[in-house]
Amino acid sequence: MRTCYTGQVCRDHLGQTVTLFGWVHRRRDHGGVIFIDMRDRAGLAQIVFDPDNEQAFAIAEKLRNEFCVRITGLVRERPEGTVNTDLASGEIEILCREVEILNASVTPPFQLDDENLSETTRLTHRVLDLRRSQMQKNLTLRYRVSIEVRKFLDELGFIDIETPMLTKSTPEGARDYLVPSRVNAGEFFALPQSPQLFKQMLMVAGFDRYYQITKCFRDEDLRADRQPEFTQIDCETSFLNETEIRTIFESMIRHVFRVVQNVDLADPFPIMPYSEAMRLYGSDKPDLRVKLQFTDLSDVMKDVDFKVFSQAAQTPGSRVVALRVPGGVQLSRSDIDSYTKFVGIYGAKGLAWIKVNEIAKGREGLQSPIVKNIHDAALQEMLARTGAQDGDLLFFGADRAKVVNDAIGALRVKIGHSEFGHQNGLFEAGWKPLWVVDFPMFEYDEEAGRYTAAHHPFTSPKDGHEDLLATDPAQALSKAYDMVLNGWEVGGGSVRIHREEVQSKVFRALKIDEQEARLKFGFLLDALQYGAPPHGGIAFGLDRLVTLMTGAESIRDVIAFPKTQRAQCLLTQAPSAVDEKQLKELHIRLRQVELAADKK
Amino acid sequence: MRTCYTGQVCRDHLGQTVTLFGWVHRRRDHGGVIFIDMRDRAGLAQIVFDPDNEQAFAIAEKLRNEFCVRITGLVRERPEGTVNTDLASGEIEILCREVEILNASVTPPFQLDDENLSETTRLTHRVLDLRRSQMQKNLTLRYRVSIEVRKFLDELGFIDIETPMLTKSTPEGARDYLVPSRVNAGEFFALPQSPQLFKQMLMVAGFDRYYQITKCFRDEDLRADRQPEFTQIDCETSFLNETEIRTIFESMIRHVFRVVQNVDLADPFPIMPYSEAMRLYGSDKPDLRVKLQFTDLSDVMKDVDFKVFSQAAQTPGSRVVALRVPGGVQLSRSDIDSYTKFVGIYGAKGLAWIKVNEIAKGREGLQSPIVKNIHDAALQEMLARTGAQDGDLLFFGADRAKVVNDAIGALRVKIGHSEFGHQNGLFEAGWKPLWVVDFPMFEYDEEAGRYTAAHHPFTSPKDGHEDLLATDPAQALSKAYDMVLNGWEVGGGSVRIHREEVQSKVFRALKIDEQEARLKFGFLLDALQYGAPPHGGIAFGLDRLVTLMTGAESIRDVIAFPKTQRAQCLLTQAPSAVDEKQLKELHIRLRQVELAADKK
Repeated sequence: MRTCYTGQVCRDHLGQTVTLFGWVHRRRDHGGVIFIDMRDRAGLAQIVFDPDNEQAFAIAEKLRNEFCVRITGLVRERPEGTVNTDLASGEIEILCREVEILNASVTPPFQLDDENLSETTRLTHRVLDLRRSQMQKNLTLRYRVSIEVRKFLDELGFIDIETPMLTKSTPEGARDYLVPSRVNAGEFFALPQSPQLFKQMLMVAGFDRYYQITKCFRDEDLRADRQPEFTQIDCETSFLNETEIRTIFESMIRHVFRVVQNVDLADPFPIMPYSEAMRLYGSDKPDLRVKLQFTDLSDVMKDVDFKVFSQAAQTPGSRVVALRVPGGVQLSRSDIDSYTKFVGIYGAKGLAWIKVNEIAKGREGLQSPIVKNIHDAALQEMLARTGAQDGDLLFFGADRAKVVNDAIGALRVKIGHSEFGHQNGLFEAGWKPLWVVDFPMFEYDEEAGRYTAAHHPFTSPKDGHEDLLATDPAQALSKAYDMVLNGWEVGGGSVRIHREEVQSKVFRALKIDEQEARLKFGFLLDALQYGAPPHGGIAFGLDRLVTLMTGAESIRDVIAFPKTQRAQCLLTQAPSAVDEKQLKELHIRLRQVELAADKK
Repeated sequence: MRTCYTGQVCRDHLGQTVTLFGWVHRRRDHGGVIFIDMRDRAGLAQIVFDPDNEQAFAIAEKLRNEFCVRITGLVRERPEGTVNTDLASGEIEILCREVEILNASVTPPFQLDDENLSETTRLTHRVLDLRRSQMQKNLTLRYRVSIEVRKFLDELGFIDIETPMLTKSTPEGARDYLVPSRVNAGEFFALPQSPQLFKQMLMVAGFDRYYQITKCFRDEDLRADRQPEFTQIDCETSFLNETEIRTIFESMIRHVFRVVQNVDLADPFPIMPYSEAMRLYGSDKPDLRVKLQFTDLSDVMKDVDFKVFSQAAQTPGSRVVALRVPGGVQLSRSDIDSYTKFVGIYGAKGLAWIKVNEIAKGREGLQSPIVKNIHDAALQEMLARTGAQDGDLLFFGADRAKVVNDAIGALRVKIGHSEFGHQNGLFEAGWKPLWVVDFPMFEYDEEAGRYTAAHHPFTSPKDGHEDLLATDPAQALSKAYDMVLNGWEVGGGSVRIHREEVQSKVFRALKIDEQEARLKFGFLLDALQYGAPPHGGIAFGLDRLVTLMTGAESIRDVIAFPKTQRAQCLLTQAPSAVDEKQLKELHIRLRQVELAADKK
């Protein structure tokens, strides 16, 4: 019934009569003629109502913003000087022959092109907000990503198998969303944090290649880039090794970028061991667009008078690093002060710095509050190792490794993304993917006094590291890998353990005793007994990937109906109170006392 | 690393050395040679271990069922007389050069090809059950259906937009699954029963064409073909009328059957008004493979002596029908007795019948306990109207319309599917799709003393029926349609209401007052105010569609990890008890008293 989308009408239709459906985006009356910018999901086109066509003109006079209309009219060239090159339809206009109001609209609470709406307004009136061209583009791009992923994986023989949403609660990792069972009184389902165990069982069942684009749930305290429910591109394959698995999935991401963004990503992606990423960038997801690196100086600073350096240099688990900032002498004292404040957020107690004015002058050429407490040999080695040039500034971090990595890592990114960074070539625009590999198997949880799984407890140790599980867990590396893009972890996965005895060793290292392991993961351990194949996989965060691709400010801008940071839907008012009858059927009651206490 | 799937090796590979991954399906030792049927998702191939290859032979001796192996060997023709035409690889065998055991297996609790496993055994050991070739085929076919649906809809510009899983509870329709909120104490999310309101809002937002293959949830008492979570192919489009919408989606189903099943469905599908379906088949989802129809006799039986008939004929809301069964005189008294018992399940108090031995003989030629109480004129008209022939049997239903429709409708299907039905040409194999249309807007709920929505309250009345909403709701027909295939409702949808004032009229007819409407559906009513476009859609039950296509006995056979009828997952033991700490965080507690009472 419609000739094409409104936003698609163009020179090709010149002289044709077209029928379009859409919304009144804007109306202008000019010289006795009415102009309507008509809108649909493909864009805008200009409709002209001439008073000679009395019937159509009379209806056009009633049109207001957001009225829904059907238009039939003749496509003609716009008069010279009125061509709009921003629009696909910018060279033409449609002389209306017939118009029908399909539905009127009350006056919207805001203009669709208002760029300064609060998030609350946008989420409360989400249906109107979704009419905005940016939101239309974001969700359309999200769709294109998902369908291209499906096409790519289909070609390679991956099949989409649905795993349950009502699953078993395993109080490990993040908090579960629970669902009380009516039929089984006193028992609860959990919404899945990921289909991890199910996809492994599908491999054991012989499906060979699995994928699913599916919702996962974590009841965490929400941050800017978190939602209670999020979407994962979840993949698993059998009989491939780590390199082969990574090759498939970097090809997938390259395919998506090529088709959807018309961008060719690096081929192959660079690969960096976790230890190197931490050494050079203080981060396991370095933004490689930023052309700055750490220089390790712990060995150099052991015996300097500057206590902050020498103490950190001498303490195991601490480190001293320099961050060389080319051109940094331009930074003012107040710039440095604000950076000092910034690293404080990450626990750094200060921010030492040296401006390298003129190396040839020796100490004289260095401007800094700390130089006097660093002896010549150390200064020399520091300059040599950082490769400092005249005009550079060196920032320093000296503290427990975690504080240094977090603080100087964040500083590195901040400087790179700053106006100064852009002007001084410290930032290279574009897409910088990489694989971070060779993650440690375990992290030590100081509070609990035990190791926890760095990835998850089903991750395979690297070849040759199996014995370390018992003898020196801290040194055991895993076959885990993260795909990092412009400083975001967009995907993560691993080769899994497929032998029951290795799985048991890992549980032992994690101090999960046999009874507990059986209770929580018995069905997986059972499955591993029956000739489980070697297998591994990866999961991509679709929301995050699309946020990155669209350049959206928040993942809420790539989700049709997101929750707020208070985990509420402002459109439908979920969550909400429910009938006592419903609770009774579910064998639960509210904790009244506590609720009352909350209200005080 | 692998040449191809094991089940794909065939004549094309003759003389080649291939590498395969898979499982030991069966082992035979014969004449000093070891034969392995090796299996992967694509099927079986025969591997031969010759004792000349000592190393490989030694490993082969260790192989047991379900061991996971890598094999490298030469593809050669099977010796004459050992060709297996049931297998793609049946003409070849692979002489093993090298074999590696990737993982051993303990002895499985059952043989994979055992056809007599209980459902409990299968669901408890689901991972092994999923290795069975039928389950592999079912889930693969399920995948092909979903990907072909996606490709078809993509071509037509439909875009997949995800709607929330954590939504608002609206205590209407089935019972919700609830999810307690931690952040918002005392409040609950509901898992969606369908994305109905969200997809309508996406149409109002201008996305024009939407689809989603998504999980829906209903906490109902489970029947054989129900699961707590089920998958819907959910679609919606703007600016199309009822016929145009049906045309798109019957094309989609035709596409899927053509590509996945190599079957051409009728083009176009026949269309039948609801009233005719009820009149002729007593069902709104008639199985048209069964060549039997009802004949209405209410007007004929008003004044007969047989009270069962005359009373039903005289009572509004009751009906008298005949079901003519060609060749039915062959049915024995005990056949008829068992049919009488069968219709009793549906509330019929008996099953009157007449065997038409020889029409020419008049009353003499009719064998029946009831003929004596039916006068000549009625007999005559009954024979004429049913078109009875010598050798036919007529069954009768006379009761409230619902009882007649359910009982005689079920009898019709039972006879058609019986051996007798097949032998007498009462059943025509194949695929018989149809659209049932013109559903009533409302059903009267005797208990509640009010009308309820037959489809859902957002369904548009038929053109010209809008006034009936207030004056005679029972007569108002809707723009709802069901797609029926071989007696299964595989999809259902409607054109929606897009004008707020019509929506209000429907709420009034349903006795939902303005305050209640606002509370439950305020966000939809709001959305309709802003130039909502005409729109409509449909949802298909993917589980049901695939069950039908695979000929599976239960939807549990087309779901990887289904729940039992007690809504439990026997594999993972979900649902399960959870920590008190988790409940506390969610501000709920168990109803202990009631739980204790349950246990008595």
